[in-house]
Amino acid sequence: MSLRDLHDPALVARLQQLLDQKTKPPGSLGRLEALALQIGLVLGTEAPVLQQPQLVVFAADHGLTAQGVSAYPGDVTWQMVRNILGGGAAVSVLARQHGLALTVVDCGVRHDFAPRSGLVFRKVAYGTADSSQGPAMTPEQCRQAMDAGREVAAALPGNVLLLGEMGIGNTSAASLLLARLTGSELADCVGAGTGLDEAGIVRKREVLGRVLERHRSARDPLDALAAFGGFEIAAMVGAVLEAAARCKLVVVDGFISTAAVLVARTLEPLVLQRCVFSHRSGECGHALMLRHLGPDPRTPARALLDLELRLGEGSGAALAWPLLVSACAVLREMASFESAGVSRSG
Amino acid sequence: MSLRDLHDPALVARLQQLLDQKTKPPGSLGRLEALALQIGLVLGTEAPVLQQPQLVVFAADHGLTAQGVSAYPGDVTWQMVRNILGGGAAVSVLARQHGLALTVVDCGVRHDFAPRSGLVFRKVAYGTADSSQGPAMTPEQCRQAMDAGREVAAALPGNVLLLGEMGIGNTSAASLLLARLTGSELADCVGAGTGLDEAGIVRKREVLGRVLERHRSARDPLDALAAFGGFEIAAMVGAVLEAAARCKLVVVDGFISTAAVLVARTLEPLVLQRCVFSHRSGECGHALMLRHLGPDPRTPARALLDLELRLGEGSGAALAWPLLVSACAVLREMASFESAGVSRSG
Repeated sequence: MSLRDLHDPALVARLQQLLDQKTKPPGSLGRLEALALQIGLVLGTEAPVLQQPQLVVFAADHGLTAQGVSAYPGDVTWQMVRNILGGGAAVSVLARQHGLALTVVDCGVRHDFAPRSGLVFRKVAYGTADSSQGPAMTPEQCRQAMDAGREVAAALPGNVLLLGEMGIGNTSAASLLLARLTGSELADCVGAGTGLDEAGIVRKREVLGRVLERHRSARDPLDALAAFGGFEIAAMVGAVLEAAARCKLVVVDGFISTAAVLVARTLEPLVLQRCVFSHRSGECGHALMLRHLGPDPRTPARALLDLELRLGEGSGAALAWPLLVSACAVLREMASFESAGVSRSG
Repeated sequence: MSLRDLHDPALVARLQQLLDQKTKPPGSLGRLEALALQIGLVLGTEAPVLQQPQLVVFAADHGLTAQGVSAYPGDVTWQMVRNILGGGAAVSVLARQHGLALTVVDCGVRHDFAPRSGLVFRKVAYGTADSSQGPAMTPEQCRQAMDAGREVAAALPGNVLLLGEMGIGNTSAASLLLARLTGSELADCVGAGTGLDEAGIVRKREVLGRVLERHRSARDPLDALAAFGGFEIAAMVGAVLEAAARCKLVVVDGFISTAAVLVARTLEPLVLQRCVFSHRSGECGHALMLRHLGPDPRTPARALLDLELRLGEGSGAALAWPLLVSACAVLREMASFESAGVSRSG
């Protein structure tokens, strides 16, 4: 499967002309205009409507937490899954505010959940293996997790997928993927995660340095993904590829979901056409990741919000959501100079 | 009238504790948490609800446009008022999206409008006088425009005022106020406005330099306001003071409405407690203005969005609006570690 190039010069020209005829100085809606243009291209229309937006939280545990890389115990993953489904997590509150359908996918949580509305069972295992001792996943598990993501994305209605995740320890996996796939210094890729203190960060860097060295031969992106984990990141890679193939818009959240895009784009570079980066996270390494996803280091992929969020769950994607709705509304609903009888600049 | 200091240390402590007990790493919602705290303080509650938000577009014309300081003809002010009320302007579309009540106040447009729903008549004159020839307003006109703003703000329901404006030529007035009230170099205060080219900006700087020199003795903020105009800025000064006195939240838009806050804070420094800066405009000078409104130049007043908007009308305030709703929802609706049965960090 190879992705279709959505850069249709004729549609770009029509969208740009439409934006320039709106009753405002050309370009004065700034990055909202670029967003409107991107959404128009992805949905292939001059009058885009975002339909049945789906916020999916991919959840899984990480064996590496045994090495003390997180400020929170691993049990928090399943407890937060319960909280998200119960309506009390940040992402639950924000999804409710914006009318986003919220689904949690258990890709590999170390817990047995009873069936409940909004929870999809795609458990690959009870957490990944400890990547400081061996690969986090077998190649088969990695494929299985990616397939789970693909199938979830294929089954959901609507034309927008908003990415979320929950997995204690997953900033470690994302940092390792960033370091390996971009060749960046590990120190620049590792941050406080959920809130390590200085000593905790030093320890995390030391542990991740050993993991990186142990898997020094895992240079292929999928080998690296299997080596470092996690199931939820692999599932997001699959979901991004599938949503992109269906020409859905993909709203990327923070550090972890951007790491999934970093992997997905090595398999299908054109996924980036479909991705909106919702925010620049406060997590050290996210800005670096966005630089690597831009056309070149001088023009990094730009995120819509910059609010020092570092929560994940899809909270940033949900917070940015109304801007996407606005971009479409501007295209569809604003009057033109002609229709409104407004004079143009002299 | 002097404003009440809303910094209640006991309420700050309760709000902070509430935020820290929510199921998220402390501080991980970044600037949304600071926003929640501010709104809680302004509304004086741990469970803030934003009610009947009012977006008010203050509109007026500027005599200085005779000197060719804008890319658009002056008629665009009244044409855009009609377009805003007709539902076709950017701010109309965004207000509709977010359920914001939209009112236009004619403070001094060079046009006779027929009465219509959403339009409030408070015309001081048919545009200000040309400030390159004399003061834009008489002291009496300035007072009248401020009173109009006060009365509009007093009459509106709800606990939030979102500022918007429309007035061809008003970036010139805002630039002059910035230069005079902060002592900044005029060159740093003057930008492209609605879209002047390089030659146009050079001409605008030259004209504004003459205006600044002509009114060199207008150093008191209200004298400067009268000298440079406009009616819509004076009305916003009044509206900000009145809304602040009623402990309403004030959502500031871009360069022009921030200039009104710059004047208002010289009269009542505590207005800043009530102000949320919705975005940092692409207009040259707005960043400088925000620096002067912060506690000191190293910590400028921070705007929520940074999308290179330079449209005005209240479009940035409307775009940032959902973030305020989210901040309140987080405070009211998120579960605590205890209520959700989630383990804390070790």
